[in-house]
Amino acid sequence: MSAANQDPWDLLPPGPRRVLAQASAIEFGQRGFHATTTRHIAERVGISPAGMYVHYESKAELLYTISRIGHAAALNALHESLSGFAKPHDRIRSLVYAFTAWHAVHHALARVVQYELRALTPEHYAEIAAIRQRTEQVAADEFRPLVRAESDLKIRTVAVLSLSIDVARWYGSVKSPRPEVLGEAYAEMVLEMLRA
Amino acid sequence: MSAANQDPWDLLPPGPRRVLAQASAIEFGQRGFHATTTRHIAERVGISPAGMYVHYESKAELLYTISRIGHAAALNALHESLSGFAKPHDRIRSLVYAFTAWHAVHHALARVVQYELRALTPEHYAEIAAIRQRTEQVAADEFRPLVRAESDLKIRTVAVLSLSIDVARWYGSVKSPRPEVLGEAYAEMVLEMLRA
Repeated sequence: MSAANQDPWDLLPPGPRRVLAQASAIEFGQRGFHATTTRHIAERVGISPAGMYVHYESKAELLYTISRIGHAAALNALHESLSGFAKPHDRIRSLVYAFTAWHAVHHALARVVQYELRALTPEHYAEIAAIRQRTEQVAADEFRPLVRAESDLKIRTVAVLSLSIDVARWYGSVKSPRPEVLGEAYAEMVLEMLRA
Repeated sequence: MSAANQDPWDLLPPGPRRVLAQASAIEFGQRGFHATTTRHIAERVGISPAGMYVHYESKAELLYTISRIGHAAALNALHESLSGFAKPHDRIRSLVYAFTAWHAVHHALARVVQYELRALTPEHYAEIAAIRQRTEQVAADEFRPLVRAESDLKIRTVAVLSLSIDVARWYGSVKSPRPEVLGEAYAEMVLEMLRA
């Protein structure tokens, strides 16, 4: 299995919108959304703040854009991980491997999109929440065959996704296993967790 | 089992230092450390920014103080959870229950102390990292009897603690089980995870 998924930034066409989104992900990651100014982002790409407004109407639109990209790319990685596998165990192993490795490889982007959700406008939040719900649904549908009671499915799905998402918090700040190693270890643990 | 641990704020004597620390936890939680000013914190408790400097020399000292409190209180909860239990299974169940419930009950404080680590000065970070290492060591020592290979112990310990810590990210923002229910479900899952 490979951790080399699609580059999330490919979800935006090449050009200044993509470059500005990438710059904002770095700037938001370094000092948080609220403390980042449009000047910080514009300076990183070498344009004026006024020049930025040609491409994005606000800092909030940038946060929304990168949140959408981060969530959509992680969901794509889930979907792709399932193709070619038929048995529940194999599908779950591949799903957990892919979601974990994705959060290790893209930990800087993932941190921003996971920890700045409260800074989104209500309309934007609703759209991101819908992607999150689809992600949870895709996972729950795969986990169902292994979970003893349907009433346990919700909490187990939350726990499994949570385990992978939290990789973004600590990955790279302490000595970290390669994404592939982490993905395989987590997949084995999850297959046991689901049956608890 | 009860989720009613010691109040983390009791680690500071009653008085203005405690009140300012509590206020800073709320303010940092709302807009992030970098976007919070000493004025925001002083205004929340109804004093002047100059009055705040009598008690804390900087915003950074406040972040350090609440990080120390949050990490020490979670470690205390781990230690307390073990008393009265002799069998490895019972000790692990109680430990995971306590650590999970702690992060549910104190999710607002936990978010700040987990997600603002990079804003600490190197000296302060070293002190907090030492508490984190002790936490990991306490857990690893308990998990050892259930883990097949010593080489698997590190990644499993990180995963188990990660599962509980990530509760702080999502708890309260979506429909959330009571801390006790979550703690019990997570404890059952972890007992299986460790054997994977």
